[in-house]
Amino acid sequence: MLPFARVSVIGLGLIGSSVARAVRQHMPTVRLTGHDADPTVRATAERLQLCDDIADTAGAAVTDADLVLLCVPVGAMGAAAAEFAADLPADAIVSDVGSSKAGVAAALRAALPDAQIVPAHPVAGTENSGPEAGFASLFHGRWCILTPVEGTNPAAVARVEAFWQALGANVETMTPEHHDLVLAVTSHLPHLIAYTIVGTASDLEQVTCSEVIKYSAGGFRDFTRIAASDPTMWRDVFLANKDAVLEMLQRFSEDLTALQRAIRWGDGDALFDLFTRTRAIRRSIIEQGQDEARPDFGRSHE
Amino acid sequence: MLPFARVSVIGLGLIGSSVARAVRQHMPTVRLTGHDADPTVRATAERLQLCDDIADTAGAAVTDADLVLLCVPVGAMGAAAAEFAADLPADAIVSDVGSSKAGVAAALRAALPDAQIVPAHPVAGTENSGPEAGFASLFHGRWCILTPVEGTNPAAVARVEAFWQALGANVETMTPEHHDLVLAVTSHLPHLIAYTIVGTASDLEQVTCSEVIKYSAGGFRDFTRIAASDPTMWRDVFLANKDAVLEMLQRFSEDLTALQRAIRWGDGDALFDLFTRTRAIRRSIIEQGQDEARPDFGRSHE
Repeated sequence: MLPFARVSVIGLGLIGSSVARAVRQHMPTVRLTGHDADPTVRATAERLQLCDDIADTAGAAVTDADLVLLCVPVGAMGAAAAEFAADLPADAIVSDVGSSKAGVAAALRAALPDAQIVPAHPVAGTENSGPEAGFASLFHGRWCILTPVEGTNPAAVARVEAFWQALGANVETMTPEHHDLVLAVTSHLPHLIAYTIVGTASDLEQVTCSEVIKYSAGGFRDFTRIAASDPTMWRDVFLANKDAVLEMLQRFSEDLTALQRAIRWGDGDALFDLFTRTRAIRRSIIEQGQDEARPDFGRSHE
Repeated sequence: MLPFARVSVIGLGLIGSSVARAVRQHMPTVRLTGHDADPTVRATAERLQLCDDIADTAGAAVTDADLVLLCVPVGAMGAAAAEFAADLPADAIVSDVGSSKAGVAAALRAALPDAQIVPAHPVAGTENSGPEAGFASLFHGRWCILTPVEGTNPAAVARVEAFWQALGANVETMTPEHHDLVLAVTSHLPHLIAYTIVGTASDLEQVTCSEVIKYSAGGFRDFTRIAASDPTMWRDVFLANKDAVLEMLQRFSEDLTALQRAIRWGDGDALFDLFTRTRAIRRSIIEQGQDEARPDFGRSHE
């Protein structure tokens, strides 16, 4: 038994187009409808045959859906939901893939006061954007976090859970507030820091951009990958999850200041202790299948 | 014509053992001698047959060398050089692979006042350590920076340059001081930040370590790779290149504070502008062959 028979994907970028491809692969009998506010993206989705049907309006995309999945930047969720509110079938479940959850849940609830809403966040992605960047296996072995609020129908939650499991993901449930704190440290702060250091490096007078690029294999290039992520998506994430991001940033700054002091005073033991401790986390991530065991992320060295 | 006929590698960790393997592959007629201060590493090197000969002392390793290559942590360079000073042939060239150059050059000069010294830094590596982690293609397409000082024999510099080119590297020359500034931003600061954020994440009360690991695919896991690098090597780098690292860290902190303020005040345009600018650097790094073009570093998604 498939959890849903008619799935509508609103927003056909990296995540939306990956969901479409994964549904095609894992649930080929599902009737798949797509929509994107951008006509160029719709045309590309038509050409790639990502869905059975690409609708020109969000309303037309949802009329017979039993799952509507919003895959737009978190700052656009409320407006996107409002666009199809009048056309949403009464028994449809609405979900999303946004990287922050408390704000998105509130925006969806405001736009769709009577809908069954099960907010979700598949923790997966690449630095690329757009309908051509997606691929069916993006969610394999990754975690998808559901953040239903009190009063959500457990059957609706179970169907969304089954949907993500069918796409190859593991599913976990937590409150929106806890999600936003966890992701602030595992995703938002890393992106913020990566964007910052890439900006810092490109603004120096003593070192040219061409030197930064040439010698980036010393570590810098790792940061440039996530700093190449979609600007609109990430602007929205930082604005939507402001409090948790600022709290984590404060912790990070304090720790960085402590390390700065250790370097200034030549406290090699403090540096060595931290550098030894951090190795263990990498090991656990690999053991739990959340990253490549091959050195250097398995980059080719030929 | 090979640049050297008898090469001695002192220190058989990731870099030293990769040099040995690369020499074997690209210059099979070179007579290769190795030494490591750690008897366990020497035994492993024997078992792996990394060299024609593994010497029990640094002195015995260099007696007939025409190139001695120091591949030990930068804080150990001076002591390692002093160990073989009495046995060094008068016409041998001494070089190294250290990640900071001004301090290493001074330490080598003090230990070997009359030697031909051509300090070098191949900008390449992985997060793994030890003789088993090395591989022959590590330097392919990477840059190796030479930092000869005034008075160095140009023929000696040319031979070291030819050596690294034979191992597949591109070679560039600059002053030790400029090297230390460039690498502070392209390598040392990224490592420092990665070590810090991994430490911050593992110290939180509200978010457990197990959650950090589970949801690390949101970006955090990228940082854990370089934060798994060798603790001794990196402690030494930060102590040896203190001034340049502190200067770059100051710049980074200022930029991070500006971004923090933009988030607090909801200045989405400032965020969007930075996030758009940083994409271009990633593109240049890929165009210049300094990183994978495949998304997500080419990580497997199956």
